[in-house]
Amino acid sequence: MSALKNALLLSHEYIKKVLKEGNTAVDATCGNGHDTLFLSEIVGRSGRVFAFDIQENAIESTRARLFEYNAPDNTTLILDGHEHMNQHITGMVRAVMFNFGYLPGGDHQKATQTETSIAAVRSAMHLLSSGGIITLCIYSGGDTGFSERDGLLAFCKSIDPNEFFVLSHEFINQENNPPILVCIEKK
Amino acid sequence: MSALKNALLLSHEYIKKVLKEGNTAVDATCGNGHDTLFLSEIVGRSGRVFAFDIQENAIESTRARLFEYNAPDNTTLILDGHEHMNQHITGMVRAVMFNFGYLPGGDHQKATQTETSIAAVRSAMHLLSSGGIITLCIYSGGDTGFSERDGLLAFCKSIDPNEFFVLSHEFINQENNPPILVCIEKK
Repeated sequence: MSALKNALLLSHEYIKKVLKEGNTAVDATCGNGHDTLFLSEIVGRSGRVFAFDIQENAIESTRARLFEYNAPDNTTLILDGHEHMNQHITGMVRAVMFNFGYLPGGDHQKATQTETSIAAVRSAMHLLSSGGIITLCIYSGGDTGFSERDGLLAFCKSIDPNEFFVLSHEFINQENNPPILVCIEKK
Repeated sequence: MSALKNALLLSHEYIKKVLKEGNTAVDATCGNGHDTLFLSEIVGRSGRVFAFDIQENAIESTRARLFEYNAPDNTTLILDGHEHMNQHITGMVRAVMFNFGYLPGGDHQKATQTETSIAAVRSAMHLLSSGGIITLCIYSGGDTGFSERDGLLAFCKSIDPNEFFVLSHEFINQENNPPILVCIEKK
């Protein structure tokens, strides 16, 4: 196993550093449910996971995956845009995971959009507890282009350094636009 | 402790993942000897560390630090430019650490220079064993400017993706040009 993991595995490493049993976590783009299951298993029966998607089939895939892996009964699946997460969640959250761009292996026409993506990250920043982390796996290129990536990165660069650390990870010598991982940590 | 460490602490995390007792490591810019001591303690009595600097006082500071901390007797201090490391080392190395730019707290006139810096990274890439890692902490800005940073990043982007992973880490919302960490891993 390479020490330099891909964006997804790197995001899991950061989440595991801060998220503990009993915490609350958010999968902001549940897609096929891999990250929802990952979060559910970390926070356990005493914790809570909120998982969002605007696609009915993503919610169903996630429900099926949680069942298949006998996940703890701790997850609320919400068919709504992640930019509305603050309408569904009260209290602070310790970790929020985003995958931006198309759903890997899915319909590239259903890509996330810059404006709602930035609104969703802002929502997550408001909900985050001190020491908590937001991970953004940003997929770009191909038929979806680079405008969402560029908009998200410009927003991330503008985040108040007195309140948040923002660390980006890029595989700078790879072809085919590998995903970028950005981590936002609340001070 | 923040989960998003600074460039130096991040570099130590990556080194600890791949460098083991008995391995050979290189501190390409020993400066005040912090990284030399770090490497020496990991590889232990059965390992080997080569530490380079072109400043006599850096070599002496490093020697004093190793003595003060009772480091294993495994380090060769070499008063020569790191671009000549392949003239001093035979065999493969598992980890190479670079700090580019000025010596923190030292004389900014003694900054490393783009051409020799790139030549040194090339040398390190030739010496690296499969799965081994090179870390580049790139300091820039202030009186030393950005040309070395830009030259090094352009070189890193051009590294053959079939032979190496190259991952850069940037604190993108900080002021005062925080150092960038680039990790190069041999496949």
